[in-house]
Amino acid sequence: MENAKFVADYRVYYEDTDAGGVVYYANYLKFFERARTEYLRALGIYQNELSKSEKLLFVVKKCEVEYLSSAKLDDVISVEVEILKIGIASLIINQKIHCNQNLTTKMLVEIVAIDAETHKPKRIPQNLKNLLIKS
Amino acid sequence: MENAKFVADYRVYYEDTDAGGVVYYANYLKFFERARTEYLRALGIYQNELSKSEKLLFVVKKCEVEYLSSAKLDDVISVEVEILKIGIASLIINQKIHCNQNLTTKMLVEIVAIDAETHKPKRIPQNLKNLLIKS
Amino acid sequence: MENAKFVADYRVYYEDTDAGGVVYYANYLKFFERARTEYLRALGIYQNELSKSEKLLFVVKKCEVEYLSSAKLDDVISVEVEILKIGIASLIINQKIHCNQNLTTKMLVEIVAIDAETHKPKRIPQNLKNLLIKS
Amino acid sequence: MENAKFVADYRVYYEDTDAGGVVYYANYLKFFERARTEYLRALGIYQNELSKSEKLLFVVKKCEVEYLSSAKLDDVISVEVEILKIGIASLIINQKIHCNQNLTTKMLVEIVAIDAETHKPKRIPQNLKNLLIKS
Repeated sequence: MENAKFVADYRVYYEDTDAGGVVYYANYLKFFERARTEYLRALGIYQNELSKSEKLLFVVKKCEVEYLSSAKLDDVISVEVEILKIGIASLIINQKIHCNQNLTTKMLVEIVAIDAETHKPKRIPQNLKNLLIKS
Repeated sequence: MENAKFVADYRVYYEDTDAGGVVYYANYLKFFERARTEYLRALGIYQNELSKSEKLLFVVKKCEVEYLSSAKLDDVISVEVEILKIGIASLIINQKIHCNQNLTTKMLVEIVAIDAETHKPKRIPQNLKNLLIKS
Repeated sequence: MENAKFVADYRVYYEDTDAGGVVYYANYLKFFERARTEYLRALGIYQNELSKSEKLLFVVKKCEVEYLSSAKLDDVISVEVEILKIGIASLIINQKIHCNQNLTTKMLVEIVAIDAETHKPKRIPQNLKNLLIKS
Repeated sequence: MENAKFVADYRVYYEDTDAGGVVYYANYLKFFERARTEYLRALGIYQNELSKSEKLLFVVKKCEVEYLSSAKLDDVISVEVEILKIGIASLIINQKIHCNQNLTTKMLVEIVAIDAETHKPKRIPQNLKNLLIKS
């Protein structure tokens, strides 16, 4: 069975590029996060509220990024989000960026749920898990 | 007679904020530029193509920014673009950012058209002017 | 009598540039702030501690930026800080960036001292003023 | 035999942090690149000149980042660069960021040498290799 995939589109502006004429390598991580945030919002999960109501923060623990081709100024890129695994206090997410039909960047990212105060790992509440599983 | 105003909406992500919990002061300039770019695109003016076909670049010569209130994580901000004056080789643009009905930031910006190679000021072609005037 | 001027040097990296091959217009504001921070540190003023011990934050209220020439990848830029006026709850600071002996960017910036909780303007403590005046 | 390690120190400014109060996850990649650039400069390798004289660009092909603890506003971080492997057209580099004696972030990065025009992989010239090997 295939996982559902969420996709968000973004345009590349001057702020995203560097003197090499393409998107700066760190800036792809910004696009990846925008799409993860929009994906969670589409499920009704608002991180800002979670941090207050549940004292829960999602933070990046690890990421593996592969740069296959480049996006340039004015390009529209499609950023994919696919949840691979939902753990007790973590998520493994697969992300891809396509630009003009080419796979531009891939990222495998591990997100950990932590307590907003102690910063210790924290169990993801079952209602959140249900929203993520049904997606 | 009132000038037409173009408005583009953007969400505030972690990348835009700083440890003060609000949008970092330099990052408002990114949002202002995104909206200027989208405004030009809406008129059929593509800067990337202009720089090749006409050897024309638009660069910021001067800007005056006023910070009135703050935008926070997850806020949606509305960025306004209003052309105040079209000169021989320059544009004066008035920009505003509203967030939750509050005026957050204002910017008066002077853009200069320059030659992509010599970097000298360059006359804005009449067909471009016509597109801007009709807007 | 001339005001004392503080100068800090920074190299331009890929992260600072854009597809135009020069420093992105919003990124000069980052360099300006780095230098202001280092200037305050040189006087023994640590903003992070101030926000805790005195509930005092310095925020940018207004800035006027003029772009005169460009800094490129690998350039070393010199960022100047000169306090023009110390008010009850505000500072007017004059800043300049030179690159290869050319004046690249100028900024006149108004900083306001605010309460870290209420965000209302707050009197700058006399001991801080003394440090700033003696500089 | 141990590899030589290059270390560069940087202060964390507001621009580097996010609303979580710590350095934004993508921004560590900027610090990593600053240190790689300074390391190459210390060996007499100037990327800007290389791209002109040899039509050679170094680009990031892959990176694996682990986030172990966080750096905060005003912290000074130490960024390490250790070349693990010099290939025909690639480099494997190990990088670490320490903050207050804690290991904050690790990155294993693969850099590829490409032709500035064709963007095809390109052999690293022997004189460059010699500089890298001796380091």
